[in-house]
Amino acid sequence: MTRIARTERIQGLIEGLDRFTATPGNGTTRLTYSPEFRQARDYLRDQMAKAGLVVREDAVGNIFGRLEGRDPGLAPIIVGSHFDSVPNGGKFDGPAGVITGIEIAFLFQEQGLVPNRPIEFIAMIEEEGARFGGGLFGSRILTGKVDTDGLSDLRDDDGISVAEAMREYGLDPENAGLAVLPPGAIHAFLELHIEQGPVLETHGEDVAIVDRIVGLSQLKVTIRGQAGHAGTTPMNARRDALVGAVSVLSELPDLARSIGQDAVLTVGKIDVLPGGANVIPDQVTFSVDIRAPKEEVVRELISQTQAVVEKANGNGLTSEVELQLFAQPTLLSSEIHGALSRHADELGLKSRVMVSGAGHDAMIMADFAPTGLIFVPSHNGISHAPEEWTDFDQLARGIDVMFRTVKEMAG
Amino acid sequence: MTRIARTERIQGLIEGLDRFTATPGNGTTRLTYSPEFRQARDYLRDQMAKAGLVVREDAVGNIFGRLEGRDPGLAPIIVGSHFDSVPNGGKFDGPAGVITGIEIAFLFQEQGLVPNRPIEFIAMIEEEGARFGGGLFGSRILTGKVDTDGLSDLRDDDGISVAEAMREYGLDPENAGLAVLPPGAIHAFLELHIEQGPVLETHGEDVAIVDRIVGLSQLKVTIRGQAGHAGTTPMNARRDALVGAVSVLSELPDLARSIGQDAVLTVGKIDVLPGGANVIPDQVTFSVDIRAPKEEVVRELISQTQAVVEKANGNGLTSEVELQLFAQPTLLSSEIHGALSRHADELGLKSRVMVSGAGHDAMIMADFAPTGLIFVPSHNGISHAPEEWTDFDQLARGIDVMFRTVKEMAG
Repeated sequence: MTRIARTERIQGLIEGLDRFTATPGNGTTRLTYSPEFRQARDYLRDQMAKAGLVVREDAVGNIFGRLEGRDPGLAPIIVGSHFDSVPNGGKFDGPAGVITGIEIAFLFQEQGLVPNRPIEFIAMIEEEGARFGGGLFGSRILTGKVDTDGLSDLRDDDGISVAEAMREYGLDPENAGLAVLPPGAIHAFLELHIEQGPVLETHGEDVAIVDRIVGLSQLKVTIRGQAGHAGTTPMNARRDALVGAVSVLSELPDLARSIGQDAVLTVGKIDVLPGGANVIPDQVTFSVDIRAPKEEVVRELISQTQAVVEKANGNGLTSEVELQLFAQPTLLSSEIHGALSRHADELGLKSRVMVSGAGHDAMIMADFAPTGLIFVPSHNGISHAPEEWTDFDQLARGIDVMFRTVKEMAG
Repeated sequence: MTRIARTERIQGLIEGLDRFTATPGNGTTRLTYSPEFRQARDYLRDQMAKAGLVVREDAVGNIFGRLEGRDPGLAPIIVGSHFDSVPNGGKFDGPAGVITGIEIAFLFQEQGLVPNRPIEFIAMIEEEGARFGGGLFGSRILTGKVDTDGLSDLRDDDGISVAEAMREYGLDPENAGLAVLPPGAIHAFLELHIEQGPVLETHGEDVAIVDRIVGLSQLKVTIRGQAGHAGTTPMNARRDALVGAVSVLSELPDLARSIGQDAVLTVGKIDVLPGGANVIPDQVTFSVDIRAPKEEVVRELISQTQAVVEKANGNGLTSEVELQLFAQPTLLSSEIHGALSRHADELGLKSRVMVSGAGHDAMIMADFAPTGLIFVPSHNGISHAPEEWTDFDQLARGIDVMFRTVKEMAG
């Protein structure tokens, strides 16, 4: 098959899957267990079957397409990513890695290759957490990190529980526990994902071989003051929670810039109460997302953030910092990393070692099995938006690296 | 009637009216034309009738209780305020002025006084704009400032139009135009309102005689950048709309402080998009409320705000300022002002001249008839909150000033 034909097949798979969105013309919106999700599931099953895979779904809806090995008793290599999306997101975040698996299956089929070790290509559910919150749900289920007895309590914005949504999708939530993989069930996990940042494109590079996933923390900061009428409360009699919050917010980005070491700090969400244009705010709550490759840098930024927030106390204002999430950096398999780098070199591709600033299913799987992760370039670094884009030939190059590595690992 | 008995009657009226709230135990919530509003209407009609007034409602639901004059052909003095509330507001904002009217009627009745000029005590609708937006609706209707043909287009948050709500309340929206007063229909308008600010209490004063209402402007500022993943976009590759907005916000309060002259500037509302904790904001919109007694100060603050916002342009950010509202300062009647001040002095009360920072129905009525406005103290300056409070004997002192002034004006 020619290079062009392969790129076209990859494009066809990406675009084929992207027909299933709740917001046609305004990005990809495919929430887990939604009607679009069900159509995407059917499409992926069809394509997997076409690529010669034996398709099954687990008890929560993760789709597996198995390429049987000469030694079926060996634990399989798992290759894939997720097929849900954020609201009004892009067509590559998740699907790029799912389509990678299917394309690799097509390559095995066309080249008449039979691996010694079985390979399973996977399309996982609810990585984004866009429907039920939390995120990484499919991989957390597989690795036993979800309390499957609590699926009736976890609800979407419409109040529909995971259990109810599963039933409507055709799954029995009572069986969810069956999706948990036993220890040793996987030989290795490999994921291709879009970078979702500008680094590869800026440097004109083809792929990034990820060696670790950042440590991550999320804080919730609350500043409280006193509401008052915007017209009748003199400037010097105000206890304006937003004025306090702004003084904190103005210092935060510099904390990450000063500490360097690839640390990032983001405030993405602010709630101002009561929220009337003519009312002095009495409460401001905002999120602080802190990430860095080194755990000690994350911890230092948390404590610097707390110190800055502390300064907002006084003058009638009080403050509070709540640690909502703390995750240590995750190291990926150096052996798989080495293999991915070597194949990228042999293919004549420009690659770089990178720390992933985002979680990804690979972060969860890495605690369970040796794991490898590569990135392909994101145009302008844009993601979670309709403009999210990776050129199809760039995606094809990433798939080449994955194909060679998987083929070698499967023997 | 003893002083204590009078204060108790005032308390009884305030508390009697406050039973009609949609949120008992959590402040006063009485949206125009709601079931609570209807119950409040019935209560006010009963009390007006008890005070010897002839009660009627106009075509939109403003309630008038008329004390006939010896010369019924003279244009009446109107005394009152509004009886709607914000959600979870207090029991004084509006009702203090409505009850003032009823209490004055009781005093006329008890003292066997018959005025030469008719006096009408009024309870107006929808001053807050909490249901249909805009605000000052009752007084704007009376003074012909509302397009009564557009009542089907103006809708509440549930999509119910003014016209539909009127029909359900028992009014015919086709007749709304009948509520418009002909020129000269009013001799004068007098309103008592709570201060909604801390000045009287701070200075230990009893009443404020308002000489003008501030000039007011509302701006909508938008800062646009580029969304990106919080984990994968290096600090130096960001076009973070919130970082730009914070640099603007940090300068705004000082503009009002520097210019002095009782100017106030408030940011009460911020929307951050897309609003995910792990997404760099691509758009931040916030309100800027600017008020000052002098029009040139308001204009200067608008232009200084625009200049500060301008500075956010560049580094991949763009900005926009939209002028949503501009109202010149409103001068109230100096003659009525003089009478109110004189009566306060004669009563031995401590008073001050004040500029009103809030709108009030008096602002609308002042364009139509000579208008007077007095404030009574707000405890801690709190308003639009369940904690809103004015001591009943303080309210009684304000009513005394109003009673004497009205009695004198009516002859």
